[in-house]
Order: sequence, then C-alpha cells, then structure tokens
Amino acid sequence: MKKIKIQAPATVANLVCGFDILGMAINAPFDEMEFELSQIPGVRITHTDDFGLPEAAEKNVAGVVILKIFEALGYDKGVEVRIHKNIKPGSGLGSSAASAAGAAFGINELLGKPLSNEELVKFAMFGEELASGVQHADNIAPCIYGGITLVKSSHPLDIIPLSSPNLFVTAVHPQVEVKTADARQILKKNIQLKDAVTQWGNIAGLVAGILKNDFDLIGRSLMDVIVEPVRSILIPKFDLIKTKAFGLGALGGGISGSGPSIFMLSETEETAKEVGEMMEFEFNEIGVENYVYVSKINNSGIQIVD
Amino acid sequence: MKKIKIQAPATVANLVCGFDILGMAINAPFDEMEFELSQIPGVRITHTDDFGLPEAAEKNVAGVVILKIFEALGYDKGVEVRIHKNIKPGSGLGSSAASAAGAAFGINELLGKPLSNEELVKFAMFGEELASGVQHADNIAPCIYGGITLVKSSHPLDIIPLSSPNLFVTAVHPQVEVKTADARQILKKNIQLKDAVTQWGNIAGLVAGILKNDFDLIGRSLMDVIVEPVRSILIPKFDLIKTKAFGLGALGGGISGSGPSIFMLSETEETAKEVGEMMEFEFNEIGVENYVYVSKINNSGIQIVD
Repeated sequence: MKKIKIQAPATVANLVCGFDILGMAINAPFDEMEFELSQIPGVRITHTDDFGLPEAAEKNVAGVVILKIFEALGYDKGVEVRIHKNIKPGSGLGSSAASAAGAAFGINELLGKPLSNEELVKFAMFGEELASGVQHADNIAPCIYGGITLVKSSHPLDIIPLSSPNLFVTAVHPQVEVKTADARQILKKNIQLKDAVTQWGNIAGLVAGILKNDFDLIGRSLMDVIVEPVRSILIPKFDLIKTKAFGLGALGGGISGSGPSIFMLSETEETAKEVGEMMEFEFNEIGVENYVYVSKINNSGIQIVD
Repeated sequence: MKKIKIQAPATVANLVCGFDILGMAINAPFDEMEFELSQIPGVRITHTDDFGLPEAAEKNVAGVVILKIFEALGYDKGVEVRIHKNIKPGSGLGSSAASAAGAAFGINELLGKPLSNEELVKFAMFGEELASGVQHADNIAPCIYGGITLVKSSHPLDIIPLSSPNLFVTAVHPQVEVKTADARQILKKNIQLKDAVTQWGNIAGLVAGILKNDFDLIGRSLMDVIVEPVRSILIPKFDLIKTKAFGLGALGGGISGSGPSIFMLSETEETAKEVGEMMEFEFNEIGVENYVYVSKINNSGIQIVD
C-alpha cells in the first residue's frame, strides 16, 4: 500500500468521574488524514484546514509521532501527510489525540502493520507530549480502540478496552478558551479521603454500568465531586446546561476532557438532539459562539476510508 | 415456617483498592444461626460459642437488627435465636456483619419474606453501627448477595452485585488485636490527587477484571497506594507474607477489611493451600496464634441449611 485516507474520531476524556483514566470515542466530529509514502526522505505535513497549526514535522503533533516511528523502525524514506482537521484545537474533544493517533495508525497501515495497537498508543503519546507537555493516553486509547477505554496506568502503559454502550452523545464546544495546562493547574493537589471514596464508588459504578450495559447505573455514576466543581467555573452556564439536560431526559454528562466542551449521554437520538438545541440556545443567548455535535459512541476507533 | 437454621459467610471488605466500597463473601469460615418464632414477646439470644459476646438483645449485633425489623413490621411476638459463631470477632473477616446479616435474613425468612435484599442490608446496617459505630454495608452486602459486591454509596444505599469469579481464597487470621476504630483513625484525612488517580485506575481495573472474568487483570489491580501502606504496619510480617504469596503463584490480595486478617486469591486450590501453609509457618515462627481458611469465593450469600 502506498496511499491511505483515514478518519480519526473526537474523544471525550475523563468521562466525569474517571479523571485521567477513562475516555470515549464519538462519531462526530472527526479529522481526516491522508498519507502517501514517498522516495524522498522526510515527513511533509500540509493542513487543509485553517487553524494555523505548525506544519514543520518536529513541531506538528502528527509529525513528531511519525518521526518517532520512522526512527524506531529504521525507515529512511519519506511521507506526505495532508490533514483536514474538523476537531477544533482547544475544544477539549481530543483534537491533538486525533492527530497523534491518526498519524500512528496511518503510517502503521502503510508500512504493513508492524506495530500493535498498544505500540500505536505509545508512539501517539509523543504527540500529546508536544501538545500539552504530558504523555497522557486517555484520549489516544479510545481514538485507536474505539468505544470506552480504561487507561489503568500510563507508565507502564496498561489499557483495558471496556465496551461501546449503544448511546447517543451530544457535545457542545463553546468558543471560550480553556488551556489544558491552566485547567490542570487550578486543581487542588490534595483531596479529602472521604471525597476520594465517593469518587471511586462512582468510578466503580460507571465501569460496572458500562460492562453490564446498565444505562441507569451509568447515569447515576456520572458524578464528580473532585474535578468538576473546580473546573466547571471556567465554563459559562455549565450548571444550568447540565440541569436542563437532565430535565430533557439525558442520562448524565459533564466536562469533556479539561473543557470547555460539555458532553451529555442520552438513550435516544431525539433526546440527544433536544439537548443539543438547548445547549446552542443557551450559548447563543450570551453571545458565545458554539458548535454542537450529535452522534453515537464510536465503536471502531480510527477508520480507513480510502 | 416456625424454625430455620442458616449459615452466614465470612466476608472480605475493601478488596485492597476498594476501600469502603467493595466486599467479597468467602465459603469459610461461616457462622451458624438458628431462629425459632415464639408466642412470648421479645428477642432472646443464646451464644453457643465462647467469645463472651453480650446476649441482651439491645446489646447484641443480631438482637438490635431483629428488634428494628420487629418494630418496622409491627411484629409483637417473639423469637429465640441461637448463634454459633465461627468467624472470630475482631478478625477483620466480617464477624459482626455475619451476625447482623444473618439475623435480618433469618427473621425475614420466618416472617414470609416481607423484605427485599436491599431492605435486609439496611436493617443489618444497624448491627454494624452497634459493633463499630458506623453504618457501613461493605461486609453486609456480600454476606447477603454472595460474590463480590459494590456499595456505590451508603446514603442513599446503592448496591451493585458484580460477580463471583471462580477463584480460591486463602485467609489467615493472626491473633493480634486491630480495632476497626483504631485502623480507621490512623488513616490520613487528606490524600494526594495523584495517588487517588492511581487508586481509581486500580479500582476501575478490578471491577473490569471481575466482570470480564480476567484473572490477570484482577491480580494486577489488587494494589492499594492509600490505605494498605498505613494499615499494614499494624500487621506483623504483612509485606513478607504478601511477597511470598506472589512467589507461590497467588494472583494478589492484602488486608481483609481493617485487619488483622490477610487474604490472597489464587486460581488453583493447590496454590491457595500452599499460601495457607506459608502463612501459618510465618506466624507460628514468631509465636503468633493464627487460623488459616482455604475456600472458594462464596457465590450464594447466606444459605438455609435446615
């Protein structure tokens, strides 16, 4: 194979109570990436979107991942990469993870699949490191595996694919800036043991709900007494939108990754759409530009489309 | 029905990383309890063991549970209760939970099952309150439901039965005194967020391992960076015994409840027995009286035997 085109899905990290360990792939939005092997050595990146991301390979999230893979495999030829990003950088929907995971996946396919999924995650983590300074896998793992994944530990890497509940996801990206580094810095370094116990009850309940396909249990486990109360103050109307979403019949939800995007899970497409309309209305009302995505949990991860 | 005899199993609370939320029933040891309805009002308790536990109903763990149930149901007659306790008080193997849960279960059977399992847990929690000052359900829930249970929250009570992995359990009770209240007091009230993240990765992994029947995942999730490092100093030879158990092929384990008992899980009875012999040897060597139990995870909870 010499050419390939793939779609890399957006991802929701943390899933409310699973700070730094859980992540979920969603069908919309997604990035498109094209790869073409070349006899001319080097990694050449072109962006067909207009986010103004750096295109020099060593400064580009996809680029660093490919450079690392080429180095590890001793591959001395080159590749042309065209990226059309739909997942907005800074949205909290795993934009950098899609680039990093997409790059690892695409190159691996073109080179005859020398790498396992777990190795793809490890290489893609170099892209996350470039983007945020931290080698985290909570967006990358679901982007590659699909569904909901548990990153039990990052070092050593221990990924447990859970499942893909048949649920609809509404995600809204209000165009306010929340930098991952800032969102991390405002967190308290110490927490109360009693809050931690509440949190791990919810995490255990969420994992059980996901594996038992118990939607009610998923809903009542999507509670966060540690991170959300601190981070949600960075997102306008967060509490109101969550309350209204429950009123419309959503199961639960919260901040996507470190924000500012908010996601909600629903059992029906109708509810998910109504939640999306409500979110759009609320942000429009205060003049905050916003993008709403309604889709299902993505059960397959990165897809080859051409 | 006028008479009934039951067996109430020992239970292992916490399951290493699931402090205050997880519990597991085991086949040995177990208590035996006999109940006989009587026209003479009142709750009369007799102990056929020699632990010297109080027999006045309002001071006895089983007694207070029955009094509460009689009151709630408006039952104005009486009952004779004979308890033969094999689960030693203070062992950390759910001795008070077996009395409390056994009492709720036995009376409910005799009165024609007016109460649900969840209601039985709620009534049995009054027994735990008498024993330890805290209305906790992490031993009671597995004693009644069998297998491994998650108490997602105590108030409101939210119990999620998980499953009963086909594993062998070795439990050793070294006769050293660790009071639940003391074991609770030495815990730090505040913990580091990074440790909490490690812990909830392990809890999520453990729940996933239990539900996916993935023994390797269960083993590598039975890690506790928060409670065990503090509590294990109260138990002689704890680290050595754990290390040796791994050496013999055990999957994992740790402190049972608040100690001093230690439990280990193994895939084969042979390994579980070897672990038990090792435990016995180690405690004998330092002159600590000890009791070793090798059995399977109990998958049925309290049983009617007569």
